[in-house]
Amino acid sequence: MNNYGVSNGDSNVHEKQVEGNDHCENGDGSNGVILGVDGGATSTVCVCIPSFSSSKTLPYPLPILGRAVSGCSNHNSVGVTVHISYPTENAARDTLEEVMAEALSKSGSDWSAVHAVCLGVSGVNHPTDQERILNWLREIFPSHVKLYVQNDAVAALASGTMGKLHGCVLIAGTGCISYGFAEDGREARASGAGPVLGDWGSGYGIAAKALTAVIRAHDGRGPQTMLTNKILKALSLSSPDELIGWTYADPSWARIAALVPEVVSCAEACDQVATKILVDAAQDLALSVKAVVQRLQLCGEDGNGSFPVVMVGGVLEANRTWDIGKEVVKCIQQQFPGAHPITPQVEPAVGAALLARNFLMKESTENYHS
Amino acid sequence: MNNYGVSNGDSNVHEKQVEGNDHCENGDGSNGVILGVDGGATSTVCVCIPSFSSSKTLPYPLPILGRAVSGCSNHNSVGVTVHISYPTENAARDTLEEVMAEALSKSGSDWSAVHAVCLGVSGVNHPTDQERILNWLREIFPSHVKLYVQNDAVAALASGTMGKLHGCVLIAGTGCISYGFAEDGREARASGAGPVLGDWGSGYGIAAKALTAVIRAHDGRGPQTMLTNKILKALSLSSPDELIGWTYADPSWARIAALVPEVVSCAEACDQVATKILVDAAQDLALSVKAVVQRLQLCGEDGNGSFPVVMVGGVLEANRTWDIGKEVVKCIQQQFPGAHPITPQVEPAVGAALLARNFLMKESTENYHS
Repeated sequence: MNNYGVSNGDSNVHEKQVEGNDHCENGDGSNGVILGVDGGATSTVCVCIPSFSSSKTLPYPLPILGRAVSGCSNHNSVGVTVHISYPTENAARDTLEEVMAEALSKSGSDWSAVHAVCLGVSGVNHPTDQERILNWLREIFPSHVKLYVQNDAVAALASGTMGKLHGCVLIAGTGCISYGFAEDGREARASGAGPVLGDWGSGYGIAAKALTAVIRAHDGRGPQTMLTNKILKALSLSSPDELIGWTYADPSWARIAALVPEVVSCAEACDQVATKILVDAAQDLALSVKAVVQRLQLCGEDGNGSFPVVMVGGVLEANRTWDIGKEVVKCIQQQFPGAHPITPQVEPAVGAALLARNFLMKESTENYHS
Repeated sequence: MNNYGVSNGDSNVHEKQVEGNDHCENGDGSNGVILGVDGGATSTVCVCIPSFSSSKTLPYPLPILGRAVSGCSNHNSVGVTVHISYPTENAARDTLEEVMAEALSKSGSDWSAVHAVCLGVSGVNHPTDQERILNWLREIFPSHVKLYVQNDAVAALASGTMGKLHGCVLIAGTGCISYGFAEDGREARASGAGPVLGDWGSGYGIAAKALTAVIRAHDGRGPQTMLTNKILKALSLSSPDELIGWTYADPSWARIAALVPEVVSCAEACDQVATKILVDAAQDLALSVKAVVQRLQLCGEDGNGSFPVVMVGGVLEANRTWDIGKEVVKCIQQQFPGAHPITPQVEPAVGAALLARNFLMKESTENYHS
């Protein structure tokens, strides 16, 4: 059984699962907990943190009381992998309930200790999506528990800002999205609409363009490129003709996106076609962020104001000589020099938990003043 | 029961189903027939024509002895609508057998009269696809019957050239492909690889770009466009946000492609975004044809030689003020002034039947000379 210890006072907070120290209290003397859930397309992660109900400063390292992982709880994950088989609504709800129960049990806690829950989930594009998932949570928890459902991008932003909803997050994995909040609570998003609707900076978008370039070189519509040999070798195919069968045999977006490292390798070897694909992707991703920054005026009136840009996802974390993330930042900073890139130090489920804590604190402050 | 009459001597041949005139003979005195099958993504059409085994000139009007229509016989229609439910291999084979039996019965003929069969089917991208479908036909027909399986584009070319395999066909409906044959039998294709692999001139490609433009205008990444109101109205949606749910609720490519008329309307009203989408699509389609023409040297050594370009599919037959087909032809003729556009006067199944006739004639000529 994992319990929690609390240490204090450092703003540079890191995730840490604390063991031993059986059943101690929250820093404020209460035993209340908060659950943060990351409901992704392939798995569901739930973490349990103390509710720190009265402390303004987060302890360092941030105590994770319990953590549990389960299968997909996402009933209609639009924008990432819509073509894979999703659980039915009931199965998804059951998964969600189980993963929360396990995280609570590992924390040595139970349902009665829960103060708030925040679920970050992909595919929340409309208030009706949010309402449907809130209804699931309402069936599980008593009415005094505060419940929040957010797009997974909001939880990702919070994982970079330690719960504060300010700035912009850019996620570029299989799919891509940018999502931002102004200090006054206004929010805006760009991209995140899936490949049919042109998320060309996503891992899927980059890889689909690379596959297209191979086909075009093969049938005489485009220049020759190293991508041909690189991709055929990676897929153990002998001719570009066979790419058609390969592509449609299993239309999962993640399977296509897995070819991004081959594109990066070709760009590193100075292949012009691959380089253009990555430069275009970086500009497309930067454009998403810039659209959000502009609409929310995150850069202040003079355009030079400072704001965080949280960078998340495999496309941005490539850690290669040809670094897509760096190109994106360069492109954003050309227009907005105050853009400050952040790589999150905690996982999205912790971001969701910190988000719930901040919502709770905000509500209690508002109640105090009203 | 439909039977056939034969008339003679006009090279400008049209399809016509002749009635009355019970059970007459072929022009050459035999009762042999040829079956042409168009195995599309949504239906299977079979026509039965006389085999005209010794006559070089096709009669006018071309006698269609019988015609039958059935459901999809296409086991893996790649490149058009891969996301819809396909019949199992057995069900597809049964459908094919039934539609041929019905066409024969309507012709007052039977299996023993069949000289040759040609099946034009989408999704034949590789010799293994061809071999698999040939095996189905071999189980149905005795060994002396000549059997041919071709990509549906080849049957479409034949429907424009009345069976002669020379020139290039461009199909642009939900998907797109160009396919060509040189006089010496060399063949080449371009595009036809489906939306993931960049068939941007297809109906799907045009509509997906239009939907993307609406999303980009909405989230601040692109200019405002008339497409927004036009498309939302056509789909009875109230906000661009709802397009995401609409798009992925049913990922059939044909459903997306059905929005092409909205894009054409906006271009006719001088919307710049819509116009650019159509101009790009026309250039992309022309590029497919030009790649094939170049590889096969259909234009002769001086580049000015004459060759047919058979134009097929909803995108090219729009019959609107903003005429995509005309733009494509203009674009091809800028490079190859000898390109001669043809709109087929007979359906693809008849093209398949004429193809079988030409293959038969060619084989008998070769046997005669050997």
